Amino acid sequence: MDDMKREDTIRVLITGGTIDKEYNPVTGELTFAKSHLTNMLNQVRCKVKVFLEEVMLKDSLQMRNEDREEILRKCIDCPENRIIVTHGTDTMVETAGVLGKSLKGKTVVLVGALIPYAFGASDALFNLGCAFSAAQTLPGGVYITMNGKIFSWGHVRKNRESGEFEEI
Amino acid sequence: MDDMKREDTIRVLITGGTIDKEYNPVTGELTFAKSHLTNMLNQVRCKVKVFLEEVMLKDSLQMRNEDREEILRKCIDCPENRIIVTHGTDTMVETAGVLGKSLKGKTVVLVGALIPYAFGASDALFNLGCAFSAAQTLPGGVYITMNGKIFSWGHVRKNRESGEFEEI
Amino acid sequence: MDDMKREDTIRVLITGGTIDKEYNPVTGELTFAKSHLTNMLNQVRCKVKVFLEEVMLKDSLQMRNEDREEILRKCIDCPENRIIVTHGTDTMVETAGVLGKSLKGKTVVLVGALIPYAFGASDALFNLGCAFSAAQTLPGGVYITMNGKIFSWGHVRKNRESGEFEEI
Amino acid sequence: MDDMKREDTIRVLITGGTIDKEYNPVTGELTFAKSHLTNMLNQVRCKVKVFLEEVMLKDSLQMRNEDREEILRKCIDCPENRIIVTHGTDTMVETAGVLGKSLKGKTVVLVGALIPYAFGASDALFNLGCAFSAAQTLPGGVYITMNGKIFSWGHVRKNRESGEFEEI
Repeated sequence: MDDMKREDTIRVLITGGTIDKEYNPVTGELTFAKSHLTNMLNQVRCKVKVFLEEVMLKDSLQMRNEDREEILRKCIDCPENRIIVTHGTDTMVETAGVLGKSLKGKTVVLVGALIPYAFGASDALFNLGCAFSAAQTLPGGVYITMNGKIFSWGHVRKNRESGEFEEI
Repeated sequence: MDDMKREDTIRVLITGGTIDKEYNPVTGELTFAKSHLTNMLNQVRCKVKVFLEEVMLKDSLQMRNEDREEILRKCIDCPENRIIVTHGTDTMVETAGVLGKSLKGKTVVLVGALIPYAFGASDALFNLGCAFSAAQTLPGGVYITMNGKIFSWGHVRKNRESGEFEEI
Repeated sequence: MDDMKREDTIRVLITGGTIDKEYNPVTGELTFAKSHLTNMLNQVRCKVKVFLEEVMLKDSLQMRNEDREEILRKCIDCPENRIIVTHGTDTMVETAGVLGKSLKGKTVVLVGALIPYAFGASDALFNLGCAFSAAQTLPGGVYITMNGKIFSWGHVRKNRESGEFEEI
Repeated sequence: MDDMKREDTIRVLITGGTIDKEYNPVTGELTFAKSHLTNMLNQVRCKVKVFLEEVMLKDSLQMRNEDREEILRKCIDCPENRIIVTHGTDTMVETAGVLGKSLKGKTVVLVGALIPYAFGASDALFNLGCAFSAAQTLPGGVYITMNGKIFSWGHVRKNRESGEFEEI
């Protein structure tokens, strides 16, 4: 498996999304305080070499074209060839499209959660695990890992009624 | 990605291990009641077709040769080509060896946890996510996913001091 | 302690509030599905005789005079003399006032949470424990238990900036 | 309620027990690392003035007469009149007896948990809440709060089969 360079550093680009949201008990709203990615990786005893970079902390419904361009630029500019992007689920497919059309030779996996890591019964850690293996095993390309499945960009949509990602 | 048959059913063979243990508040001991795999997959909204089979619920230190032979037989006999085996970490490497020497043409991923799913701050869901992607993307062979890493059987050991899995 | 009738049944009137809210992963909103009180009392192995009654499931900002009158009527009509009312924190003080002015001879403890029981790091179980002891030990009157403290109605307010309850 | 001095500082004497145990993932055993009381009180936003003192971190089955004498001395010597003692459940009744026979004029509440705070589905926070209200409202004496109930020392035993505390 040497050719897969599985021991290489993985760049984790943090962009926000439900996975990193928390509940503000004073306002009663879901907000961003700081990313939980470091805590998450510590909790699960992840020993893969990881370079964490917080690009932004945004609800993906608030992301604009320039945000997606910035994420694309970060993917291009970073020295790593295996990249995980944490992202809100609502426009994850859209960002995957921007990356998929322009990126060559790198493996990028977008991942998020339907329930924040900070809440009970979250899907965050499972999804993150899916992303870690996918980032280490898949050939160059842009993918989404949600609901235990792996989707290639351009072949996936989020079902707004069920909240699930499905192949198209 | 069609050749990877990622949408195929994954057989999950449950054999026990810390991932499925729980705390008995009357005796103060860690024991098995029933497997948490169904709850885990429901919590994370896994939509991969899965066939769950409880082979045994054992601490892997209690496993004998016949237990490993039974797991091997289950891997051979089941119709699925992509298999996840939940397993205690203490002898996971040994079982991987038994499977690795005899299995041909199937992708088997062994996975467990250092902290039970039922406890706080567990690594179970992350590890399980790693196993799900690995089972869907890796070529035929026997693997272990722990600590965010993917190991081929015969190239991995558990470090007894740190509890971590490392390449050899 | 016989005069305190600590072994008597406690009536728990459920009215909603953050304590019972949950996160809807499809809409991204905090909503009510069903009360978690039964689960909470099972989890903590509460062996006090309890009569659970779901009066309503409302955000307390949505409560109107008629809602508070209904809660008052439930307190008056139920056979129990020791009552816990789960309630949203935003207008808990107001409802305590309605109850305090009209109720005689019963011990009523209002309680809620700043973080839903269903989320990580919730204050719900601690607050509920405070309410259980208070309901069993305090003389007739209307009280609020929040932040580990016990307040008599009319001598308490919620600090909107900090989210904390303080004596006035 | 001024005579109850509910706003007074509560001394919390930490002695160990299941409430403070954690799972050691390397050895697979339940052990003590450090007390979780500070984390617990922060999580629940307790605003009562508290003086935390770690007397020992012991499984109560390991406690000897001299340990109980030390706890008694701490109760006598501390300036506070309202004291919570966190304690293992197996010999909590015994320690309550030692305190009950010798202490005068102070309100002491012993409390523990059947499931560690650090695990999922713990009773620790609820029990602690019960202890906080009991310590603030009860007259001088030695009590145990478990299973949502309040017991006077000498009138309580732990049922070894069910794990529950019951009046005798």
